[in-house]
Amino acid sequence: MKITGRTRIYGIVADPIDHVKAPEVMQRVFERHAVDAVLVPIHVSPQGLPAMIAGLRQMQNFGGFVATIPHKSAMLELCDEVDEHARLIGAANIVRREADGRMVGAMLDGIGFVTGLRQAGIEPAGRHVWLCGAGGASSAIAFALAEAGISHLTISNRTKAKAEDLAARVRAAFPQVVTSTEEANFEKHDLVVNGTSLGMRPEDPLPLDASRLHAGQIVAEVIMEPTMTPLLQAAQAAGCRIQLGHPMLETQIELMARHMGAIP
Amino acid sequence: MKITGRTRIYGIVADPIDHVKAPEVMQRVFERHAVDAVLVPIHVSPQGLPAMIAGLRQMQNFGGFVATIPHKSAMLELCDEVDEHARLIGAANIVRREADGRMVGAMLDGIGFVTGLRQAGIEPAGRHVWLCGAGGASSAIAFALAEAGISHLTISNRTKAKAEDLAARVRAAFPQVVTSTEEANFEKHDLVVNGTSLGMRPEDPLPLDASRLHAGQIVAEVIMEPTMTPLLQAAQAAGCRIQLGHPMLETQIELMARHMGAIP
Repeated sequence: MKITGRTRIYGIVADPIDHVKAPEVMQRVFERHAVDAVLVPIHVSPQGLPAMIAGLRQMQNFGGFVATIPHKSAMLELCDEVDEHARLIGAANIVRREADGRMVGAMLDGIGFVTGLRQAGIEPAGRHVWLCGAGGASSAIAFALAEAGISHLTISNRTKAKAEDLAARVRAAFPQVVTSTEEANFEKHDLVVNGTSLGMRPEDPLPLDASRLHAGQIVAEVIMEPTMTPLLQAAQAAGCRIQLGHPMLETQIELMARHMGAIP
Repeated sequence: MKITGRTRIYGIVADPIDHVKAPEVMQRVFERHAVDAVLVPIHVSPQGLPAMIAGLRQMQNFGGFVATIPHKSAMLELCDEVDEHARLIGAANIVRREADGRMVGAMLDGIGFVTGLRQAGIEPAGRHVWLCGAGGASSAIAFALAEAGISHLTISNRTKAKAEDLAARVRAAFPQVVTSTEEANFEKHDLVVNGTSLGMRPEDPLPLDASRLHAGQIVAEVIMEPTMTPLLQAAQAAGCRIQLGHPMLETQIELMARHMGAIP
């Protein structure tokens, strides 16, 4: 890798920033496709985000960015256009900057998550899913799992109104999925997913009561650093099969590069 | 070089951008000092510059930027603070972003130019200088050459009022230098400097009437790409000693890194 005046620039907007993996993972895609480009970390707070995006619109050699925690939902308002998938979910995680500065968003987290599960040999169809969180990543996962044919979806979220709102939106789009926000029958769910950021910081509480985990369950994580979150450690100790956070990014990274126009 | 979420980001703002050398030259400084940082090209027009700077103020892992053609003069207005040197010259070419988003500018072009001459064994003291241009780079060079002890300075510029303004400012700060904007006695000048961007594009006219160059003159260039501008080619053909554009950047690059706080 060598940066010159001709190198095209991409970014990842996040807060915090230290843990992001996209610069390294995307670099491998650029190298594989012989693209003269780099993806750099852009550390910006929610308050600073609108000005940052306004600035990036003016940067003529900037091709687009990955949006991650906590900026995915804000993309709907800050982009000029988002695809139907992102609008349905209420969040976007990848944005293309067009030549005139227009920003065009899409949401690939759900596709990445489901593809990652399937590549690990875990078919979502017919499963009872317990999903922690109702934010951007959780929403994407909820819709993608519904589309992949799960039978039941229970959404557990600190703010219950957000869980209910997500459940209603999933039900509207996929009426065949039985949705709930009642935190009962945890044991009957065979796929448990953490879609929150709880586990990124050492002081975070667990996103669920880990003492209830049992060997018949698969526990999947969206967090990439640390690789083994306290939830995954507890799940492993309880005899659950676990699914790490990395595959979700790795399976969507080429789709991200394509959305930004970096590769054909 | 490897970019991760922890890599600190620096930039160079320019228009056009393809020709800039700072990303590569600064990378060698970062590597020599084992600093986890990259400097990326930021292509922005004069119209887009204020919004771009406002955005970069919000980017918490951004350490500062090199400002080059055509943005050096605009830095005085866009920075929160510039050093006395930059205020005198009316331009800044290096800006530090402080932790709170404040932008602090300085002007190092003059120091870089004079250091480059001296490293090539060309002592400016006592010389008669013919300077093409009265913009940011030219102003920096004019003040630095005056400070280095030249005896005469003739400034040739398309807009004569700008040349007269620069001559007056140099005279006010260095009364011992004989300044002029009268384009006479070209032959008597022993150091000829191009401080304009003429020569960067193939279609550019020469910054002066090259048929008047003679072997007793030294011709110095600020343009780095192409390395051999049409002016330098004509000078070489006329038997002049030539000074390339690169040393001006190379001699100030460590000072730039220090101003941005990237190295101690």
